[in-house]
Amino acid sequence: MNEVTVLIAEDDAVLQSDFAGEMIRQMRAIDTYGTYDDWSVAKILEPFVLTKEMKREIPIIGDPDEIILARVKAFYNAMASMIERQCGFMAVPLLNLSYEGFGRVIITVGKLVVLDKTLRDVHRFGFPSITKMKQDADKLLIAATDVISKHNDVAKL
Amino acid sequence: MNEVTVLIAEDDAVLQSDFAGEMIRQMRAIDTYGTYDDWSVAKILEPFVLTKEMKREIPIIGDPDEIILARVKAFYNAMASMIERQCGFMAVPLLNLSYEGFGRVIITVGKLVVLDKTLRDVHRFGFPSITKMKQDADKLLIAATDVISKHNDVAKL
Repeated sequence: MNEVTVLIAEDDAVLQSDFAGEMIRQMRAIDTYGTYDDWSVAKILEPFVLTKEMKREIPIIGDPDEIILARVKAFYNAMASMIERQCGFMAVPLLNLSYEGFGRVIITVGKLVVLDKTLRDVHRFGFPSITKMKQDADKLLIAATDVISKHNDVAKL
Repeated sequence: MNEVTVLIAEDDAVLQSDFAGEMIRQMRAIDTYGTYDDWSVAKILEPFVLTKEMKREIPIIGDPDEIILARVKAFYNAMASMIERQCGFMAVPLLNLSYEGFGRVIITVGKLVVLDKTLRDVHRFGFPSITKMKQDADKLLIAATDVISKHNDVAKL
């Protein structure tokens, strides 16, 4: 008997959030051929979910392909966009990855670094569930807005 | 009659500066095969000099090769290293370039962006003279230490 695992339920509450909306905007922006036009939100975001079982099946060492890189960029672009909306200043993401999938991503607002993350194993980029993805995004967003409110003068530079 | 243009004089005062010393250190760090071992400082730094006439002969549009990219990295690594020595905190460079040679380089100290530069036409990276190169580096260094002294608390984060 075949078992089809649904990675994101069509009625998952997370899909109604601002975060999911922003992610969809980012994904549509890179969808040159309009492939996603008649896709549901759940279907577009599905590649971001990587359960433990799925992760285990991917080799530990591997080079990230263009599709994975586009996903990583979409996620951090969405973060920048949400930070921008919260604080009102421009947030700029900067991603530096080696071809082996190691690197660093930062988001700056003015002269302030509001997000700074070391990336590893980018070829296995993904979140255990869409709920966990939103939680991680929320944490990053809170940390970013927190440092902006503390160092508003630098963020305005 | 052939005319050999000397791009950097062997007795140029700039070659004695801390900046030149740091540039040499960076260049030697990427010199895996020890090619530079018996080269003079002037000879190692010569590829960084690109006179107007030389620049004119390079096509306006072009993709930077690995050698040029290594030079750009060496320059900004040297900047980070000099900033670090001046302020006493770790300075981290982050370079993001498209394959077409457009991009951005930033150097952060703590959560403070101390250098932020848009890069264009990286395949024509170079300075009119070694003196101009040092002047540009000095300007970047002064601007960086200036912002660090103003926002010391953020640089310490």
